[in-house]
Amino acid sequence: MSAAGAASAAATASPDSSSGAASLARIRAPVQGLLEAVVEEMSRSVANDAPIVAQMGHHLMAMRGKMFRPTLLLLCSEVEGASEPAAIPLATAVEMIHLATLVHDDAIDHSVLRRGMPTLNSLFSHQLSVIMGDFLYSTALSRLVALGNLDALRVLTRASTEMSLGEMRQLAMTNALSFSEDDYDALIRSKTASLMSAACEVGSLCGARDYREELLSYGESLGTAFQIVDDLIDYTEARETTGKPTGLDLREHKVTLPLIAALRVMPAPDRRIVDDFFADPEPSDMSIAEVIRIVGENGGLDYARKRGAMFASRAEQALTGLPDTVARQSLIDSISYVMERHS
Amino acid sequence: MSAAGAASAAATASPDSSSGAASLARIRAPVQGLLEAVVEEMSRSVANDAPIVAQMGHHLMAMRGKMFRPTLLLLCSEVEGASEPAAIPLATAVEMIHLATLVHDDAIDHSVLRRGMPTLNSLFSHQLSVIMGDFLYSTALSRLVALGNLDALRVLTRASTEMSLGEMRQLAMTNALSFSEDDYDALIRSKTASLMSAACEVGSLCGARDYREELLSYGESLGTAFQIVDDLIDYTEARETTGKPTGLDLREHKVTLPLIAALRVMPAPDRRIVDDFFADPEPSDMSIAEVIRIVGENGGLDYARKRGAMFASRAEQALTGLPDTVARQSLIDSISYVMERHS
Repeated sequence: MSAAGAASAAATASPDSSSGAASLARIRAPVQGLLEAVVEEMSRSVANDAPIVAQMGHHLMAMRGKMFRPTLLLLCSEVEGASEPAAIPLATAVEMIHLATLVHDDAIDHSVLRRGMPTLNSLFSHQLSVIMGDFLYSTALSRLVALGNLDALRVLTRASTEMSLGEMRQLAMTNALSFSEDDYDALIRSKTASLMSAACEVGSLCGARDYREELLSYGESLGTAFQIVDDLIDYTEARETTGKPTGLDLREHKVTLPLIAALRVMPAPDRRIVDDFFADPEPSDMSIAEVIRIVGENGGLDYARKRGAMFASRAEQALTGLPDTVARQSLIDSISYVMERHS
Repeated sequence: MSAAGAASAAATASPDSSSGAASLARIRAPVQGLLEAVVEEMSRSVANDAPIVAQMGHHLMAMRGKMFRPTLLLLCSEVEGASEPAAIPLATAVEMIHLATLVHDDAIDHSVLRRGMPTLNSLFSHQLSVIMGDFLYSTALSRLVALGNLDALRVLTRASTEMSLGEMRQLAMTNALSFSEDDYDALIRSKTASLMSAACEVGSLCGARDYREELLSYGESLGTAFQIVDDLIDYTEARETTGKPTGLDLREHKVTLPLIAALRVMPAPDRRIVDDFFADPEPSDMSIAEVIRIVGENGGLDYARKRGAMFASRAEQALTGLPDTVARQSLIDSISYVMERHS
């Protein structure tokens, strides 16, 4: 069996697909064959003549995640029935763009683990990771150019620009505690919703053009809910299930929706504790736990859950007028999957 | 005067254009107006709503270099007479792609100065620089997509992929002294010649399609000569003219053509000195000067000069069949400019 074949056979057996695997398997079912073709194409794209690229690519394939964005793209391409053949290379390009951003995020954060496996920067070097991210991105775009699909190129280069803008806004933030809910909404739209809605929109371009607006809007609401849940998980899940310490965002003084909501109503003594926490460059585990408690007691988690549910419901509404196909059902199931996941 | 207008008025007055300014001004003359439009378009592209992007973009515009790649592109677009209007946005995209690679190179090398000015990573942060590089690259591609020019997109995404491959090969090199002349040729083709030949090829696409092959080949030879001269300058020029210490490549244990050539013929005692030098993680200025002397005495500089001249002559030959226009004359002058520059 070729390396690509082996990778593809393991398409659904990646390390972190175990949690919520049942529902993810059901979601993927209508596009399972296409998804395996995407994994094969990704493997081929990173199987480069340069040994270093091949080694890094191999590791990326081994640590790849749930392939959620290509799954969404493929499902969207099938909501009217069969998708066009371009769906496979387009889904490949979307996942490679996603990988490129993860590789750069891990490199600049000096992250050691992702999905329970060593990051590229920890295994190879920081320098190589930055350039590998560039390679993944330009390879993805080369493939899009080869397809000649200017619409898809337009959607995906715009999403990439959005993602880098969001990341820069976050990095440049100087007074974390003045970060408003509007700022947060704009940030997660750039950081997460942009590529998910782009994946859905590009999916519509190869088989479901009549539902372009609906699918774009579904992807945007789903991506927003996805990030809110992600930010909640940082407050609620223990180290065992996330593979990263609870409160990691707080440790890095990143302010997300639960804290933003809690800050609006918390009494002065709590606020003083939070202020002290944000003034401490290296907060202890105990002080992180205390802020998590304060956020919970001041309704921050409840508020974020409500907002997440609101976006989930918007995502479902966007699908109302679509034909009743198995792909549409999987898109609906994807919403529950996003809302119920714990990592 | 708008910020873009002010930037454009200073198009030829950037900090490092003084050396060889006379000949550079003559080279630019046929496309001076277009070049000013390119500078304006670059300023607009980085004048973002996000204050951090605007600040970083402003600094990039202030430290911009000779705009050599857009100059080549514009000249190539005029070798048959007037160029098409797309030449301006295409030249803008090429310079932005070039900037993106410089920003990433400086970030991963933790360079403090470029062209005598502080780098983005030293002035802002390493993290912001990596993402700013991503932003520049995806913005450049968005603009190419908006033009709908798939040919240009094909050429430029291929060049970007080549550049990242070259950089990774160089970063992954473990035994520097086993680096052969073939390896070196492949490396500088990826690192430097790829984008220069892409600039020339894209130039041909907007006004000189009949000379696409010739201009591509001119750009490749010119780019190769350019990098050989760059590597020679590191051996020959003093700190005052380069703005960086002589022997910087050697200090970082980077092996370039002068050393590769000298290694082939140097006597055993010299070789032992070089071996010791490469085993020393932090070589002294004195030992750098000694290796530079050994390389010179063993004909390394002469060999590299001869190879550079050979590529310069190939670049000139590529222009033989072109119409006798002022643009063609400027392309010929560009070869002397590349060969005679000292920084």
